Amino acid sequence: MELKREIEKYKKIIEDNIDKILPKSNNKYQSKVFDSMRYSIFAGGKRLRPILTLKTCELISGDYKPAIPFALAIEMIHTYSLIHDDLPAMDDDNYRRGKLTNHRVYGEAMAILAGDGLLNFAYEVMNEAILENNKDNHRLIKAFSKIATAAGVYGMIGGQVVDILSENTKIDADTLDFIHKHKTSALIEASIVSGAIIGGASDNEINALEKYGKSIGLGFQIRDDILDTIGDMKKLGKDIGSDEEKNKSTYISLYGLENSINKTKELCEEAINSLSIFNQKDISFFVELAKYLVNRDY
Amino acid sequence: MELKREIEKYKKIIEDNIDKILPKSNNKYQSKVFDSMRYSIFAGGKRLRPILTLKTCELISGDYKPAIPFALAIEMIHTYSLIHDDLPAMDDDNYRRGKLTNHRVYGEAMAILAGDGLLNFAYEVMNEAILENNKDNHRLIKAFSKIATAAGVYGMIGGQVVDILSENTKIDADTLDFIHKHKTSALIEASIVSGAIIGGASDNEINALEKYGKSIGLGFQIRDDILDTIGDMKKLGKDIGSDEEKNKSTYISLYGLENSINKTKELCEEAINSLSIFNQKDISFFVELAKYLVNRDY
Repeated sequence: MELKREIEKYKKIIEDNIDKILPKSNNKYQSKVFDSMRYSIFAGGKRLRPILTLKTCELISGDYKPAIPFALAIEMIHTYSLIHDDLPAMDDDNYRRGKLTNHRVYGEAMAILAGDGLLNFAYEVMNEAILENNKDNHRLIKAFSKIATAAGVYGMIGGQVVDILSENTKIDADTLDFIHKHKTSALIEASIVSGAIIGGASDNEINALEKYGKSIGLGFQIRDDILDTIGDMKKLGKDIGSDEEKNKSTYISLYGLENSINKTKELCEEAINSLSIFNQKDISFFVELAKYLVNRDY
Repeated sequence: MELKREIEKYKKIIEDNIDKILPKSNNKYQSKVFDSMRYSIFAGGKRLRPILTLKTCELISGDYKPAIPFALAIEMIHTYSLIHDDLPAMDDDNYRRGKLTNHRVYGEAMAILAGDGLLNFAYEVMNEAILENNKDNHRLIKAFSKIATAAGVYGMIGGQVVDILSENTKIDADTLDFIHKHKTSALIEASIVSGAIIGGASDNEINALEKYGKSIGLGFQIRDDILDTIGDMKKLGKDIGSDEEKNKSTYISLYGLENSINKTKELCEEAINSLSIFNQKDISFFVELAKYLVNRDY
């Protein structure tokens, strides 16, 4: 298996499907918010989260298709969170993935509404799938629950709250851990687990994938902090040094660069080890992905 | 039946239950967003929407209880929309219901996140109810669908988009109609219809209540415009004349005050007439409510 080719294949599935379901600008009234939603959705993400949802569903059941609406919803939730995080009242960022942030193109009001619109639409899409699978929707309702909790005030929003409140403050290791686990890991973990639930995973399989998700989620975030220190702005498509500029405490400011790099290596090993339960299956995608995430340079 | 007493009874049910389920500030990390969410939820709304959900469920089935989680979710969605609408980038309002707006107390970042948190939590609460009623949840999933669509870019958010884009612009009657129908009526209508669906209403009953909802939704909005012109600021708890100040087109600026008052009377009659299908039931609450909504002075 070549990781890059596999990622491209599933990325295309996500992007083709999200293009199909996202509202298009054919209505004279609220067209502008459709444009604004599409702008950020198609501003070039890695699609890591929705790919994980499809891949875990496929790992368990052999078929990724039942997970598609949930994968799309997760990407919409992720994108809404980026639009709101970038707002002047929050991180006040001008660039994201090498492009102007949403509010820099559409204005603050439309960016707030595009974020609201994507969050709401994510739930519309998941509920539609639940409604259509009227006879056998228990797994879908459970997957919905996992995703909604991970996105909310006990998950991603909670993490963002603490992140915002921690600006210009020296925070302790526990607080940083809370931010990482909630702001980033929670949704990554939910991406993995929701796909597995939809595929019909056993409790043991869900637990194993949850551990994998926790490890790569934290590894992903620490790698982000590392890249903000030593990364290449061109490859990243955003300013580097922005954490330091905003006086944000990061894994590196607390533990130093070398310890941080070592920690990502440990997390990568833990992630791979947690998948031992699947020794009868081809887990090469998940192994390669874990390695890639902690070594990526963008 | 005395309308005021009946409203107070159901209002208390809503407020007691929303107090039970809303996150409380007992966590040292994201407490501030819990405070901010609670501040706006308990800033003294009329609870019109969730009361309608309980009352239509009761009208159809004799029991309002199955609709409680959905009524609470609707109130959370309504409250999130007010928090975001009041933001400096949107309507930039300082007061709402006689109290400082959320961002004036908690700052813009926390107000955005409290809004996001309430919207997300609304979907968590509805999904939880669906998950708990595993055996018989089809009506709940349909009610969810009605509410989610009404809240989204084809409903309330769509209306707010066009409202924002119409500031300082002379708009035509069709555009104003779009704003009214989407920004206000859609969620009021969904409040009514979702309760009926949960109660097990027939298609004919749903259609009748949908018509009732459309009429009182529009009547409610036109009355809002009238009160912004001739209302008493003390009773309203907010500035009057704010539409004119923001150069917002309203029903009154397009049709004049007298025509607007006549229109609310027509809508009230239409609302009451649409309920003729329920001639075997006690519909006095709905009749009195329609009269009150178009005559209220706050």
